[in-house]
Amino acid sequence: MITYADIEAAYRVVKPVVHKTPLLTSRTLDTHSLNRVFLKAENFQRIGAFKIRGAYNKIHSLTLEERKRGVVAHSSGNHAQGVALAASMLGVHATIVMPKSAPPNKVAGTKSYGAEVIFCEDSSDDRERVAKNLEEERKLVPVPPYDDDKIIAGQGTVAVEIAQDIDKLDYLFVPVGGGGIIAGNAVAAKKLFPGVKVIGVETETANDCYQTFRKKEIVSIQPPNTIADGMRTQSIGKRNFEILMNYVDDVITVSDQQVIDMMKFLIERMKVVVEPTGAVAPAAVYHNVLNLSGKTVCAIISGGNVDPAFLKKIL
Amino acid sequence: MITYADIEAAYRVVKPVVHKTPLLTSRTLDTHSLNRVFLKAENFQRIGAFKIRGAYNKIHSLTLEERKRGVVAHSSGNHAQGVALAASMLGVHATIVMPKSAPPNKVAGTKSYGAEVIFCEDSSDDRERVAKNLEEERKLVPVPPYDDDKIIAGQGTVAVEIAQDIDKLDYLFVPVGGGGIIAGNAVAAKKLFPGVKVIGVETETANDCYQTFRKKEIVSIQPPNTIADGMRTQSIGKRNFEILMNYVDDVITVSDQQVIDMMKFLIERMKVVVEPTGAVAPAAVYHNVLNLSGKTVCAIISGGNVDPAFLKKIL
Repeated sequence: MITYADIEAAYRVVKPVVHKTPLLTSRTLDTHSLNRVFLKAENFQRIGAFKIRGAYNKIHSLTLEERKRGVVAHSSGNHAQGVALAASMLGVHATIVMPKSAPPNKVAGTKSYGAEVIFCEDSSDDRERVAKNLEEERKLVPVPPYDDDKIIAGQGTVAVEIAQDIDKLDYLFVPVGGGGIIAGNAVAAKKLFPGVKVIGVETETANDCYQTFRKKEIVSIQPPNTIADGMRTQSIGKRNFEILMNYVDDVITVSDQQVIDMMKFLIERMKVVVEPTGAVAPAAVYHNVLNLSGKTVCAIISGGNVDPAFLKKIL
Repeated sequence: MITYADIEAAYRVVKPVVHKTPLLTSRTLDTHSLNRVFLKAENFQRIGAFKIRGAYNKIHSLTLEERKRGVVAHSSGNHAQGVALAASMLGVHATIVMPKSAPPNKVAGTKSYGAEVIFCEDSSDDRERVAKNLEEERKLVPVPPYDDDKIIAGQGTVAVEIAQDIDKLDYLFVPVGGGGIIAGNAVAAKKLFPGVKVIGVETETANDCYQTFRKKEIVSIQPPNTIADGMRTQSIGKRNFEILMNYVDDVITVSDQQVIDMMKFLIERMKVVVEPTGAVAPAAVYHNVLNLSGKTVCAIISGGNVDPAFLKKIL
């Protein structure tokens, strides 16, 4: 299990290449939620999501021999772009396996960073199979999306930046997909903000981590139907589970409709664009799922790469 | 004509109540425009636009006797909300004349700050007539939208903040409606950034200031048909004209389509929501109307209060 020292080390690695993203505030949001709210805007991060942090920390940690071999990852979205950009900055060849149905703008984004894109069938089985074959045939180094110490430590640097801007924090709300961003930030936040409660947030149908937290064992669910595509992971990773049980105080859920309401509030009142997964943690605060009042809370906006057609639909 | 000392004084007045808005950057925008570009994000300002700066500076400058009488303004949009919020913060009663067709969200916003809203017919003649009547009957103090020294000085505080964040600036691009924001910021920028060129930007059909600048006299046009509603003013003010001829280097235009392209770029790549008028100055930079290269340029995003239905249409 990683410690805060690993996150400090990761921060030294990623600091020169990531954006320090702002903490957004809104009087209306404070009033509506009954708390003092900060939103950590990783939608303004490079590639439009936090994923560059872990990917860069991971690829930076490879030996020269490994870097020469090149890396492989599979992803339909933000992890693909994070690995592609990180590899490009470090002069490493990246091969990314993407499902045929991946959004054209994300495929174009991934290619624009110089990565080689190989298409596969849409099932996550096929994605893993194709990536595994490439790893073996071409001797590539895999960059896993979340179940990896370097990835987890990299994602944890979000909380390091939060602590540079605010001194006190009662609650930190973090979205949960495979568990990379919550694992890293739970470890960091518990060190940086004594007494803070760390809360994982999922959508109702994608509640594998909610069940996992209660059963105290990794629960795997059927591919969930949710607008928050970053939450379609069927279970969290082993390393992520270990940190979850040691550092996280609760896991809660919000509905897809609450996520849509939050996206609209962010667009109409706060003038920022977030993707559905990025609105999940803010939605838990906006709708005050935990019935808090007078607390200082922060929710992480994980990313902003929303399909314009989807944005159009919800407006 | 105001001087930089008036803007410094205005900054001391507004600093405690306005947001210091960020300068946004994007590698893609730099590459596309061939320049180093900063966007001053007044869409994140209180009430969603720069108008709070001038309105607060103006109402703050009133005598106690005037404050007791209350203020009156006419506006269909951001000036209404700016005056309403500024008056509310200063404990002054505000009466706002709004056209019957004003967007419901802007009427609701204005009322939410405690202002009394009085509706009038849609013509700007009727708006002025109704406001003038109220001024006389109720002995209210008028808060003009742009042709006023305190308003101009207040709007000029945008450039004061820009100079806190960057040391050097070659070009400043500012949108022109009635001329409040360009007048204040031309005076400030010429003091703060030696050698800077200040460029006014309008949409093609709303080119009264473009014509005014070339004719060296105030040109009034028919109500223009443009998506940038903040540019529908038919002429700039007298005080604004005087500053224009003394401090501004050029006035240029962009097409409505270029404004829409800019709004889409801002949403899809930079994850920020701006109103059409807010995208006018950035559009001149993005489309590099002046054919610059290697310069440090800043464009002011004037506001973000876009109608969700319009946003839906352009996506």
